[in-house]
Amino acid sequence: MQVRLRGKTIHFRTVTFDAHKNVVELIDQRLLPHEFKMFHSRNYRDTARAITDMVVRGAGAIGAAAAYGLAQGLFAFRGKDLTRFAAHGEKVFTTLKNARPTAVDPVNAMLDVIEVMKLSETVDEKQSIALSAAEQFANDDVEHCAAIGQHGAKLIKNGMRVLTHCNAGWLAFVDIGSATAPMYEAQKRGRKFHVFCDETRPRCQGASLTAWELAGQGISHQVIADNAAGHLMQRGEIDLVIVGSDRTLGRTGEVANKIGTYTKAVLAHRHKIPFYVAIPLSTIDWKLKRGFDIPIEERSEDEVLGAIGQSGSKKGQYIRIANPGSGARNPGFDVTAAELITGIITPEGIFKPRELWGNRQRLGLLPHN
Amino acid sequence: MQVRLRGKTIHFRTVTFDAHKNVVELIDQRLLPHEFKMFHSRNYRDTARAITDMVVRGAGAIGAAAAYGLAQGLFAFRGKDLTRFAAHGEKVFTTLKNARPTAVDPVNAMLDVIEVMKLSETVDEKQSIALSAAEQFANDDVEHCAAIGQHGAKLIKNGMRVLTHCNAGWLAFVDIGSATAPMYEAQKRGRKFHVFCDETRPRCQGASLTAWELAGQGISHQVIADNAAGHLMQRGEIDLVIVGSDRTLGRTGEVANKIGTYTKAVLAHRHKIPFYVAIPLSTIDWKLKRGFDIPIEERSEDEVLGAIGQSGSKKGQYIRIANPGSGARNPGFDVTAAELITGIITPEGIFKPRELWGNRQRLGLLPHN
Repeated sequence: MQVRLRGKTIHFRTVTFDAHKNVVELIDQRLLPHEFKMFHSRNYRDTARAITDMVVRGAGAIGAAAAYGLAQGLFAFRGKDLTRFAAHGEKVFTTLKNARPTAVDPVNAMLDVIEVMKLSETVDEKQSIALSAAEQFANDDVEHCAAIGQHGAKLIKNGMRVLTHCNAGWLAFVDIGSATAPMYEAQKRGRKFHVFCDETRPRCQGASLTAWELAGQGISHQVIADNAAGHLMQRGEIDLVIVGSDRTLGRTGEVANKIGTYTKAVLAHRHKIPFYVAIPLSTIDWKLKRGFDIPIEERSEDEVLGAIGQSGSKKGQYIRIANPGSGARNPGFDVTAAELITGIITPEGIFKPRELWGNRQRLGLLPHN
Repeated sequence: MQVRLRGKTIHFRTVTFDAHKNVVELIDQRLLPHEFKMFHSRNYRDTARAITDMVVRGAGAIGAAAAYGLAQGLFAFRGKDLTRFAAHGEKVFTTLKNARPTAVDPVNAMLDVIEVMKLSETVDEKQSIALSAAEQFANDDVEHCAAIGQHGAKLIKNGMRVLTHCNAGWLAFVDIGSATAPMYEAQKRGRKFHVFCDETRPRCQGASLTAWELAGQGISHQVIADNAAGHLMQRGEIDLVIVGSDRTLGRTGEVANKIGTYTKAVLAHRHKIPFYVAIPLSTIDWKLKRGFDIPIEERSEDEVLGAIGQSGSKKGQYIRIANPGSGARNPGFDVTAAELITGIITPEGIFKPRELWGNRQRLGLLPHN
């Protein structure tokens, strides 16, 4: 998306690759919203470390970073010996895979690249093909988000007030984002609307990242405490909710997303406010049979017991909010039932949550899965 | 309640009066949860300032502080001239009233004292009676909270997990508290239970004050992000909700309380979890005809855009959480409909919200109101 830097508006992707220098270029998300700076990763180990250290985060973005990181690692190989090349490739793959062990996107992205590489028979060719495949992965990610925007934009009418939770924006993908895609597209179409960003405690990705994104694109918005949406809905001040998802069950239409999403869905349902989930197809889990079985990560207590400064001289500074003698529970995600969801916005169109399974071929489930 | 200081357990009230020294003694709540320290207010102007500066906060506590502050101010009067005494009293009353202009409790508490003073005819007597009346107000507050505890304790069974929001604890009253009263009484009765404290953004009174209170009384508890309760309810990990109220409508049973209360009520309703509101009778508004007309204070954006350190060396330090270029909405309260409330725990017993009006005489509505 557009970023304004020193008076100029420049288009950036979250993740790109400079093939001449063999450098993966990442927007350093640890510095946002205070500072916009590119992180130049000069070898695949640095790229893996950037994934581990959250320089880059978000499903699509870490997928692309891993795919580029794999190509980057393969390019570093000198020689023509296919066996040694394969052993080297194995090492690169494992290093990038272990960068964030619970995430599925880096692995899937790299398997895509490896699948295409089988078509060639020399090291040189395999290197070139790996690069093309990684580029393809990143471009597909952008295209899928753009398609989500095309389908979702029609939901946003002039004057609407839209609520979103956490950050499912362009920073979480290669570009455009999932939950934000309909907003960016609606803006292109000249619609005027206002976005409420749940601050999304405990890590506050809504207050920091989503608010930064919307400010950058000039979209009218305000941050609210996670406690406030219920009141705003009650007073008729929210017309539409759009969130992202970390995992959506193809069989049931249940949606796992950042903690607090379920609460917003329950409130929206009570107030008859449309509640949409925007996802790329890679988010759909076709295997799991019930949402209850989705493992919910219990994260560090410190996130709840304190807060981290996101800007200014206090950037990165941790303050304790809670009573020093008290502990915390910190589930990272929750699961929203299909009945609470108006529709799932995918690159293939908008579906009722329980229609996903019936459209599984169209939505990318391969017959052998 | 009990506070452990330098190895000793001592009983404290939030507000007391030392008649010999003419000093109002307040727990300095600005320093909690990090530091426990008494604030010695040596004249009525300091007492007014302590109310303004939030040394003391919470309906019952500021009521008692104002009642004591009035007695304190009257004691400072030297002479026997009733006209000059009345003029002096007027000045003291106005100063304390203006300490927190939107609060009704200080005014009501002082009017109670003034009403009783009419029974006497000399300055000396009026001074003594003012003191007795202020003591009476404080003791009544404690007694009412104790009665809430007696009625509410039966709701808390062994092994239960109880959710509360914000701080309606002993720090908000002279002692014991409203929402916490059933917990403290259940503990006395030997019951074992666990309390989840919503951190209660943006001011985090749950994470700081309620957690401090429960830790001090040795009640098992954990702080959670306001986003987490929905998930915990879904997983069957919350059995009961008890909150306080800033204003409860006697005619409709609607409850105004800290922002986010409504959300918890909606979630509890969906999960068929009992949702109780604990209140002293002074909280009941017998006049207003609908909750929608309760004015909702829109507070400073800065509260949402940042957080304040509550302990350690970062005590009082403000960090910005949100994107520097973004603004916020910050409604301070919300209103919960009667249909979402299982019962209102009062000093007179537990009532269905819509039963308040039918019991208005018993609940303190005077015939001429």
